Amino acid sequence: MKEIKGTIASPKGFYADATHAKLKHKKRDLGVIFSETPASCAGVFTTNQIQAAPVKLDQEVIKGSLLQAIIVNSGNANAVTGEQGERDARLMQSLLAKKLDIPEGQIAVCSTGVIGKLMPMDKVKAGISAIDLKRHQPEYFSESILTTDLVTKEIVLQREINGEVVTMAGVAKGSGMIHPNMATMLAFITTDAKIESSLLQQLLSELTETTFNQITVDGDTSTNDTVLVMANGQAGNSPIKAATESYQQFREMLKQVMTTLAKKIAADGEGATKLIEVTVKGADDEQNARLIAKKIVGSALVKTAIFGSDPNWGRIICAIGYSGGVINPDKIDITLANQLVLHQATPVSFDEFKMQEMLKQETIEIIVNLNQGDKAAQAWGCDLTYAYVEINALYHT
Amino acid sequence: MKEIKGTIASPKGFYADATHAKLKHKKRDLGVIFSETPASCAGVFTTNQIQAAPVKLDQEVIKGSLLQAIIVNSGNANAVTGEQGERDARLMQSLLAKKLDIPEGQIAVCSTGVIGKLMPMDKVKAGISAIDLKRHQPEYFSESILTTDLVTKEIVLQREINGEVVTMAGVAKGSGMIHPNMATMLAFITTDAKIESSLLQQLLSELTETTFNQITVDGDTSTNDTVLVMANGQAGNSPIKAATESYQQFREMLKQVMTTLAKKIAADGEGATKLIEVTVKGADDEQNARLIAKKIVGSALVKTAIFGSDPNWGRIICAIGYSGGVINPDKIDITLANQLVLHQATPVSFDEFKMQEMLKQETIEIIVNLNQGDKAAQAWGCDLTYAYVEINALYHT
Repeated sequence: MKEIKGTIASPKGFYADATHAKLKHKKRDLGVIFSETPASCAGVFTTNQIQAAPVKLDQEVIKGSLLQAIIVNSGNANAVTGEQGERDARLMQSLLAKKLDIPEGQIAVCSTGVIGKLMPMDKVKAGISAIDLKRHQPEYFSESILTTDLVTKEIVLQREINGEVVTMAGVAKGSGMIHPNMATMLAFITTDAKIESSLLQQLLSELTETTFNQITVDGDTSTNDTVLVMANGQAGNSPIKAATESYQQFREMLKQVMTTLAKKIAADGEGATKLIEVTVKGADDEQNARLIAKKIVGSALVKTAIFGSDPNWGRIICAIGYSGGVINPDKIDITLANQLVLHQATPVSFDEFKMQEMLKQETIEIIVNLNQGDKAAQAWGCDLTYAYVEINALYHT
Repeated sequence: MKEIKGTIASPKGFYADATHAKLKHKKRDLGVIFSETPASCAGVFTTNQIQAAPVKLDQEVIKGSLLQAIIVNSGNANAVTGEQGERDARLMQSLLAKKLDIPEGQIAVCSTGVIGKLMPMDKVKAGISAIDLKRHQPEYFSESILTTDLVTKEIVLQREINGEVVTMAGVAKGSGMIHPNMATMLAFITTDAKIESSLLQQLLSELTETTFNQITVDGDTSTNDTVLVMANGQAGNSPIKAATESYQQFREMLKQVMTTLAKKIAADGEGATKLIEVTVKGADDEQNARLIAKKIVGSALVKTAIFGSDPNWGRIICAIGYSGGVINPDKIDITLANQLVLHQATPVSFDEFKMQEMLKQETIEIIVNLNQGDKAAQAWGCDLTYAYVEINALYHT
């Protein structure tokens, strides 16, 4: 398996484009992904009980097991917009259907931005007209879905499966309101592999638990979180079936795409200066390890300490204690930036000056060994900074 | 019932003092509350699985149903300090027992400060020697328990119960690691009312749910949270029994002391400029209302919006959606700073400029009506500010 340079349109038969529809002041804000043939599909969505209009619509679309296009806007979440919001989401779908000459029911709609404002549909209509899939500049797409994100988040992988070269591409946005259960994060994954929708859905749901659901920026689960996968089969591989070698190969590929996007979202969390990667091992149960890892990476006190390059491991053990996970308080080891700081619940002395230097790196690893079993899990987040407060004190008005 | 000027030693038979034992650089950091006769008692403690040495000790003390003194230090939490920490907590108890000539088992020990450092017992010993209950300056006590708190938190109430004037006093510290389930918050309540320990415990546990457990500063539940109540009976009232008028009077008094301390802790949260009070009403179940209120007040995005005086109610509805509470998304009303902003899930237009002015007040009220029933609950928190990040990026080193 190798990583290649490319875009969300690198798998065979995929196209993408984006335009500035003036939903945001300056940057591209309306994008489309298109497969020339209908693709198998899978989706996971926010568990927030307040769901944006497009989230409700996409759940219907995915049930049809075929997806040929995705239209995405940033700048407006189309959430808490009542029936007008639902009409607007459907209008986006039908306008694109007409433009591309494909069925409405095979188009997913995603929105991200401010909650509670009606979509400026005149601008959206003009934007859809301006989309040009023959422009061959699919790199515009990854920009068009960003809100307060600072960088685009993409990955493209290739490997041989059943004798054919399969390409898989992923693109995501994250930044704030990130605490997926399923965060607003949006992620789109395309592949030319051939695989049925039901199997693809099963894989996506399973892998979401250990990837996107293990990141947090601020503990707020958005109304718009959506991950969509399209597999159009144009690689020409014989179909991927459960419990085969090709299934394992595909799963590994999908997991790497999802993990990479999840980490990129965490690293570019609002105001972040550092990626925090927490590994909890020695657990007797994986779910328990996931729970503890996510609580550590979500602790405001751990996040501010990392921002301050402060080896304040007391805040890590405190978060372990309130996580709700099953622990033996007397058996816990903590390693912070490669330095063992707590061994069997007893503080280990270390060179504080050297440690502060280590904590100035871009990625901070926290490893917790529960010493109870052989299960492990990871979670990813970012530091809590002055910039996070600034961005979110001033976002709306 | 009236509020009077006073201290934790205002109820009959109580004394308090504090000294600078040099656990902190400059401020008083070791305090004692003493009742001249053994008092009925009750306590609630952190639910964090990592419990500081004094927390474990106090749970034993409370089981004995009699408490005559409480010794408290700030600057060091005596948490994650292993067996030496337990020996140190017991030594604090026995040194004070000797000084006051009372049984060790009737002394509670509380600590707050940095986690994972052994107590400097030489300083503590000297501090205990310097305590002078005859100095009659009990106002020192409320200062001595503070960490990053900016203000002391006290309240004293008086009312007649069963023909006798009963006085009740409360003192607390809060500031960071505040998300009580039971936060480090410490609170101490003294009264000269006569009431049995079992009934006092029942009342304290019940009222904690709607007071201290409904505040949050940063979502981190401390290793040291402790609330202790002492009732020494010196008011001379006939004993308060369950299901009587005097019980209701006493309950009301205790609730007001606890609610007042809880709100003072929230208002003085680390870096806070505003108190946020959330009321969720129209619920079909009180626990549901409590859950939703606490999720709103705990949302980093709501907290930063309030700091920025930004009427971004989308973040409030988002938090309601992910709270896990039972809701009907189409029925929700939200009132922010006296302005209805969402009615039956439909945005209400308002004067944004005027609203921003309203949001500059010291207390911001958020009222959510679920329109499902007649149950209600409240929660209290504070805004998330640059100062919170500053304090916590630099606390330890």
